[in-house]
Amino acid sequence: MTHSFEELQLLFNKELGAYSPAVEPNNLQDPVTYTLGMGGKRLRPVLLLMAAEAFGGKIEHAMPAALAIEIFHNSTLIHDDIMDHADVRRNQPTVHKEWNVNTAILSGDLMIIKASEEISKIDVDKLKDVLKVYNKISTQVCEGQQYDLNFETDDQVTISDYMKMIRLKTSVLLAGALQIGAIIGGASVDNAKNMYCFGENLGLAFQLQDDLLDAFGDLKTFGKKIGGDIVANKKTFLLLKALEIAQGAYRDELTSLINKKDIKEDEKISGVLDIYNSLNIKAITEDFMLQHFNKAFDYLGKIDIPEQNKETLKQIAENLVGRKS
Amino acid sequence: MTHSFEELQLLFNKELGAYSPAVEPNNLQDPVTYTLGMGGKRLRPVLLLMAAEAFGGKIEHAMPAALAIEIFHNSTLIHDDIMDHADVRRNQPTVHKEWNVNTAILSGDLMIIKASEEISKIDVDKLKDVLKVYNKISTQVCEGQQYDLNFETDDQVTISDYMKMIRLKTSVLLAGALQIGAIIGGASVDNAKNMYCFGENLGLAFQLQDDLLDAFGDLKTFGKKIGGDIVANKKTFLLLKALEIAQGAYRDELTSLINKKDIKEDEKISGVLDIYNSLNIKAITEDFMLQHFNKAFDYLGKIDIPEQNKETLKQIAENLVGRKS
Repeated sequence: MTHSFEELQLLFNKELGAYSPAVEPNNLQDPVTYTLGMGGKRLRPVLLLMAAEAFGGKIEHAMPAALAIEIFHNSTLIHDDIMDHADVRRNQPTVHKEWNVNTAILSGDLMIIKASEEISKIDVDKLKDVLKVYNKISTQVCEGQQYDLNFETDDQVTISDYMKMIRLKTSVLLAGALQIGAIIGGASVDNAKNMYCFGENLGLAFQLQDDLLDAFGDLKTFGKKIGGDIVANKKTFLLLKALEIAQGAYRDELTSLINKKDIKEDEKISGVLDIYNSLNIKAITEDFMLQHFNKAFDYLGKIDIPEQNKETLKQIAENLVGRKS
Repeated sequence: MTHSFEELQLLFNKELGAYSPAVEPNNLQDPVTYTLGMGGKRLRPVLLLMAAEAFGGKIEHAMPAALAIEIFHNSTLIHDDIMDHADVRRNQPTVHKEWNVNTAILSGDLMIIKASEEISKIDVDKLKDVLKVYNKISTQVCEGQQYDLNFETDDQVTISDYMKMIRLKTSVLLAGALQIGAIIGGASVDNAKNMYCFGENLGLAFQLQDDLLDAFGDLKTFGKKIGGDIVANKKTFLLLKALEIAQGAYRDELTSLINKKDIKEDEKISGVLDIYNSLNIKAITEDFMLQHFNKAFDYLGKIDIPEQNKETLKQIAENLVGRKS
């Protein structure tokens, strides 16, 4: 019997709620509890548990790895928020704001270690294979973050560079969570790899949708301010694609909007959106997103298990990229 | 056959020299190579290899763990240097100075992960036991660093607090390196624990000696400026002991020297040293150091292997705390 997304989310949140890093002093422990308690969809650990169940694995065998993935993910949020000078996350002060930068560095470090500690609790016969994936993807998350930082001051970023960056920074953790779940569930090497590729492409589609929502999303459902990426000149797929295809007056106008220092935020957003609309950026991005979404489903199709075992994974994928069909 | 400290150092440095984190982009990889290439005695990894050999283990089986310990240790140096605003280490700019704070945070994170990756390469039959020790001691290093940071603004720090802090920040990594080496070498649980306790007490003695050298060391052999701790009001064993036992005029004078903002460095150093001399701080600290040193040897004595297998460990211990007898 497999569980639904909501059931797994509940089971995981119960486990996470009972988790404590069990360290001293308080100002090292508290930021960890604070960060893990901020909420969130718990997408990565739930996918991991789901993948384990798809191969007949038991939740309790996969739970330490699910915890590890979530703890690691949250460690990157703490450190990314320092690097991005982000003061608020989920409507709460970030750790370096609530405490200070030193404590944010150190509690993030601690969480990287605690994540390793959790994942090392899985059955020893799967441990080497799981650690291999885990250490690879956590390395790649660092690589993705460094590329993202570098892109801020790099005017030569291409679409291909961008896809590489979001693959490393976002997709591989999702993909690796699914692969680790599959391994723990007892999947063959090929099935576990296809699970990885399913997640990799799903992650890319998910990030492209995030780019789209920033520009074209519904304020109510998106939860963030529309146009934040545009104001920050963030090199998203939308902007890079626009810069790639814009000619003549569109190109001049877009370049001017990007470089203007004293422009009002609303004016900049509507100016850039006008160009996006003229260049058909929304449809181009949706199409590209759909390509990755379909590719994800191709890999899911290759996995050699009963179709019914893939049902919850299919549903979550469809929910993730906002398609109901 | 066992190897000498120098031979193990050579073997380890060869391995470390060939090590690459194999990541992109360059400004993530370069800080790692830079930091690992800064040199140093490689004390922790060499002790690990030595402990493995003491139980008849092979160097090559222990090498991934030795690399892990050194990589982890260096990750803490990068992050500590950010927290301490230290611009120079081993006469070279620190990573956050040579690159920037963000890259220093991220390359430190990467090294924590890469250390885990290396240690996971040891034989699977020892892996769980080794990871248990490794994750525990790396957690404790974070705890020690947080205590150290907290002490800067805490006027109630006791000798007992201080000993706890240096145990966590310094000793456990040395102790754990020895325990891990012992486990890999095939030691019994008790022997491995005694190896840990040997290292723990040795580490405490070593740190107490470091405190002593800052105040009473020979500039030529110490390598650092004499009195740095005194100028910075660093709560070392010496200062805490002096504050504990000083009475009357000594107490007033010491408190005044600590709190004076506009005092010349040399004046402060010689003033504090005068009080240390009057209070017999040097002999008290040496005695306390010797207690830990002897305790270390007691634990070494309890280890159930031929005495000749302990010879190199004895020698390094004696060299470490500057005793030749």
